[in-house]
This record gives sequence, C-alpha cells and structure tokens, in this order.
Amino acid sequence: MHAPGMTTARLSFILVASMAAIPGLAEPQSSSAAEQGRTVPARQIPVPTTVSPQLAKIVSAPPVPPTAPQTAQEWKAAVQSASEREAERIAAALTQFAVTIEPLQIAGVPCFAVNPPKVSARNAHRVLLHLHGGAYVFGPGRAGTLEAILVAGTSGMRVISVDYRMPPDHPFPAAMDDSVAVWKALTHRQNPSNMAVFGTSTGGAMTLALVQAAQKQHLPLPAAIASGTPWSDLTNTGDSYFTNEGIDNALVSYEPVLGAAARLYAGSVDLKDPRVSPVYGSFHGFPPTLLTTGTRDLFLSNTVRVHRKLREAGVDSRLEVYEAQSHAQYLVDPTSPESKEALRDIASFFDAHLGT
Amino acid sequence: MHAPGMTTARLSFILVASMAAIPGLAEPQSSSAAEQGRTVPARQIPVPTTVSPQLAKIVSAPPVPPTAPQTAQEWKAAVQSASEREAERIAAALTQFAVTIEPLQIAGVPCFAVNPPKVSARNAHRVLLHLHGGAYVFGPGRAGTLEAILVAGTSGMRVISVDYRMPPDHPFPAAMDDSVAVWKALTHRQNPSNMAVFGTSTGGAMTLALVQAAQKQHLPLPAAIASGTPWSDLTNTGDSYFTNEGIDNALVSYEPVLGAAARLYAGSVDLKDPRVSPVYGSFHGFPPTLLTTGTRDLFLSNTVRVHRKLREAGVDSRLEVYEAQSHAQYLVDPTSPESKEALRDIASFFDAHLGT
Repeated sequence: MHAPGMTTARLSFILVASMAAIPGLAEPQSSSAAEQGRTVPARQIPVPTTVSPQLAKIVSAPPVPPTAPQTAQEWKAAVQSASEREAERIAAALTQFAVTIEPLQIAGVPCFAVNPPKVSARNAHRVLLHLHGGAYVFGPGRAGTLEAILVAGTSGMRVISVDYRMPPDHPFPAAMDDSVAVWKALTHRQNPSNMAVFGTSTGGAMTLALVQAAQKQHLPLPAAIASGTPWSDLTNTGDSYFTNEGIDNALVSYEPVLGAAARLYAGSVDLKDPRVSPVYGSFHGFPPTLLTTGTRDLFLSNTVRVHRKLREAGVDSRLEVYEAQSHAQYLVDPTSPESKEALRDIASFFDAHLGT
Repeated sequence: MHAPGMTTARLSFILVASMAAIPGLAEPQSSSAAEQGRTVPARQIPVPTTVSPQLAKIVSAPPVPPTAPQTAQEWKAAVQSASEREAERIAAALTQFAVTIEPLQIAGVPCFAVNPPKVSARNAHRVLLHLHGGAYVFGPGRAGTLEAILVAGTSGMRVISVDYRMPPDHPFPAAMDDSVAVWKALTHRQNPSNMAVFGTSTGGAMTLALVQAAQKQHLPLPAAIASGTPWSDLTNTGDSYFTNEGIDNALVSYEPVLGAAARLYAGSVDLKDPRVSPVYGSFHGFPPTLLTTGTRDLFLSNTVRVHRKLREAGVDSRLEVYEAQSHAQYLVDPTSPESKEALRDIASFFDAHLGT
C-alpha cells in the first residue's frame, strides 16, 4: 500500500524505519558484510547533561591513546609514577573519611587494615576483604588502598586490603595464592557469614576468581561479594571491547596496555583459563553478588556477561549500571553524587547480607 | 622516575596509560574541547562471539538509515505496511505458544484478551496488562499483540493488551487515557495485588507513566511492573542516544523517526512533560520494577536513568542488561536462548510478586 507521491525506494526506507520503530519488528538482513562485522562512522558525543557537573567533567575528558611499557624496567617505572600520583588521591580520601591504615601480615601476606574511627556494635564482628585493581601490575603497597578507604569510610566496616604480589616479578598464580591465603586465614578468625569480598576492575575479577578458588579448595564462602566492573575476560572478547572503544576515556582500548598486562600476568597460562578469566568458570553456588559498571565502560560486557552467568546459575546477582560512566569512574571523585551513590550501595548491600 | 632510554614524551604516555589502568587514577584533563564533547573515530565492530548464533545474526545486520514519514497519510501507509509484516511474526508466535487471542472492550476501549490454553490454579486470579510498543504510532489492532503472546505463553498468565488510540488521529493524551481507563476497570474486577503491567519501548514508557497517573488519580497500583527498554525521554537526552548511535541497528538514531514520532504524539505538550517523558516524573512509591535493555541499545540510558531514579526513590528495581543487544532485540526471535531467558525472567518476576 503506497502513499500518494512516494517512490518505492522512499517507501522501502519508511518501511524499515517503521520496522525499527516497532520492537520485535526489525528483521536481520542477510549480508556477507555482516559476517565480518560492520563499520560505525565517526561521531561527536556531547558532554552528558544527565550526570552531575563533577562527573560530566570526568567523562568528557579527551582520552589519551595509551602506550604499553615494553620491558620489566619500563613497567616498574610506570607503576612507580602511578603510585606517586595515587598518593595524593589517597591522602584526600583519608581526609574525607578519617579512617586509619595500618600495615599488617596475614598468613605471611602483607595487607593493610583500614579501620573506621568508630565501629558500631552492628559492625563489630564484620570484616570486608578488599582486592585492589590496576591491571595486575599497578597499585602495590598503599597505592592499592583507595577503594578500601572509600568503602570502610562509607560502610563503617573494617576492611583488610591485600597487597598481593604482582608481575613483572610475580605473575599468576602469585596474586591469587596470596589473596586466597588471606581469605583462608580470615575464615579461621571470623565467622565467614560476617564477611564479604570486594574489588574493582582487576580486583573485581579477582573477587570472582577467589570464590571459584575457595569452592575448589572447599573453603567457606563469603556472605556476599561486590565485583565492580570486573576484568572477567583477559582476552578481547565481549562486545563492549569494540562498541565502547574510544568512548571509554579511562581504559580507551584493549590494546596495547590491557593486552600487554594480561600477557604479563598470565605468563604461560592460557588467557581463557578460568583462573585468570573467571567468566569462563562456574558461577554455581556463588553468594549474593553486586556488580557495578557504566554505559561507556569498556568492561560493560565483562560485567554483563558475568551477571548473565550468575543469573543462569540461580545466584542472587544485582547489576547496577551508571549513566555515562567510563571504566570505574565511580571511584574517581569520591565527593561526586554518583560516587557516593555507588559507595552507599555497596555498603548497604553488605549490611543487608552480612551477619552480625 | 624515568626508565633508562625513555623520552619524556614517551613516559608521559605511559603515565597516562598506567593512570587509566588503575581504577580511580585517571584524571580528567582540562580542555575547552571537552565542553563541546568529543569526537569518536569510525571503527569496525565485529560480529559478537558472546551471544547465540541466532542473536549474532540479528545484532550484526547492517542498520538502514531510517526516513520519517512527512504527512499523516505517509504515517498511515507506513503503519499499515509494518502491520502487514508483523502479522507473520504474530502467526509464528501463536504457533509457538498456542495461546488464543480474543478482541473485547474494557471501559469502552478495544483490547485483546490473550489466554494460555490452560491456566493453573496459581495463576487463576492473576491478570497482566500489556501496553504495546511502536513509537506511539505503530502497532494498532492485532499488530500490537506480539509481546502479549510471548509473555502469556511463557508465564501461563492471562494478558489483556490495550489497543490504545494513536496519532496521527489521536495524539496525547488519548493513548494514556485509554490505558488508564482499562487499568481502572480491571482494578474493579480483580485484586490489584494479583495484577502487573508491562510493555517494551513505548509500552515500557507507558507502563511507567501509567503508574504515575494511577498515583495522581489515587487508583490502586499493580503489584509489579516490567518496563522493557522504556522510551522514558522523548527528547534526545541521555548518553546512549549518542554513544550507541549507529551501533544500535534497530532504532539507529533519534532523528529523524523517533523525533518525528515524539512530536506527533506529544502535540502541543512539552516533550519533557513527565506525562510523555516519565523519566522526569516521580518514582516514589513505585511497585517492584524489572527493567530490561541491551549493551548496544539506543535506549540504554533511557533505561539506566529510570533505574537510577527508582533506586534513589527506594524502589525494588532490578536492571537486566543483555550482551550486544540493540533495542528490544530480546523480542525479535522468540526461539533464541536470549529471548527465552528474558521472557522467563519477566514471567518469574511476576510470579514472585503477584498474589494468588
């Protein structure tokens, strides 16, 4: 049925437009090009008006194409410089939250105890285990404690942050061995039903891998976990590695830095081994899980894929996506409303699921 | 601290790379360009390997730039043609699910009763109200019943699908007036705690607007709602309107079709009026809500922004994001695993929240 004055070519466009506009009506078109994927043209993305001014500034900063260190020495220099910058952010967070940090050893592994100034009776027997992010190579020592400070300060719960070993000196399985050893030791001191594990990015993936390792070793599981935008797949598999490339201004792209860090960490282990890419492991029997990501996050798919697997396994998994955020930007400015919302969400999630 | 043999320029790149790799370390860079937004270069997006072959085919089809009808006659022709195509999909769904469809009138509004072949005792007193999608202009008559068939078939619950009036003949508030009238009539027949409301795209937004209207008119609320990728903001506001432009192969872009349909529907009402763009309304006191979207969805932000507002209002809102899906593609092939998962999720959500 043609409307008067319309050409057939014009009408076919309208038909497709109308198909697209009715959910469920768009039909895939056969195309050999589809088999190779498709090209998305360049586009201008405006500063989002749907976030706080603080966050708008963060998400709108132009991404800088990253360059990967080539040698162990170059990695160490990059790590050192990053740590120096992180020290300022940690000092600011300590002022904002007034928590204390003390180094200690648990099961022979260096850790930091991050303690709120006053612990309520409700939180007296609760402990949170923190695994820091940083692509398995950044964030040694105090440089890895920022998120622990933010969560301890927001939740009023004690946090133990693991200063696990990292490449280039200590590739897999050192980081996981250290983290699991600390978890095991904590379960002897404290009721596991009063404990949770959390982390972001690499720390989010390690949180998942820790539960899978604990299951294999028949260790008790935490009562809940919070996995922020987990690096659940060390290979560049997952749709948002491509759709959000260059849109995410924090990670920017898989190559060259993430790919190099993945290979540096995994060493001789296959990048799809579930011990380094937990999305390929089993999620049956997981404790309640909170997952956090953003619409511009290069790891949006890394997060969504884990959530889908958790739901398929019947786990109580909750997915929180933040408007316009690139990777882990809920941690960038802890004074922004979005950061406060994400941190309060983690705190109330643990409060709801942990015993007292 | 410079590594040997590295230039300062090189090091600064590495520093930025390392900052990006540590969550929370990336710092926004001052830039006047940032105020206008930024340009994302063209890129190739491969066929996703993380979805079923059925869905991979759907998400990889090249998008066709849509063209909007210009006159009432052109709109009607486009609607008619779309309905003719939709008839085939509805016939296939009726074969798959063996539900029956009967036209009826409720409060003088034409509706369809979509009934499973056998209703269990548990579902005997339950009714689901369905508001179809289609940009407020597509999907009149039986052409709007696909989702009702899929949900009735999957849940085993009776569904009433509203054949509400639409532009060009009947702009706002006709569609909402009809839907609210049907809801009101149903609450006189059935315990509202045994009822839910659902819909996708335009139907998802109308579901939200219906709850807001019911609150204002002091009508009972449903026990739960499922709002699939709601068109919650009729203006092109929200980050994924830009970040997923051309990546979403179902809706493709806001202009020209969505913008034209928005103006056709809203008529003289401001596009940001909460009655047509419910994201700007209040979400306090909402019933438990299930929101569904996909990582490539042009309405990812429309969905996420509603979820954030629901959570801020203390509502039990659950967000489900599907890997690599463009707008509403969980409805495209009801035999795909992803479609089955989304439909089962809606069914079990209603089963958990509705009284018997």
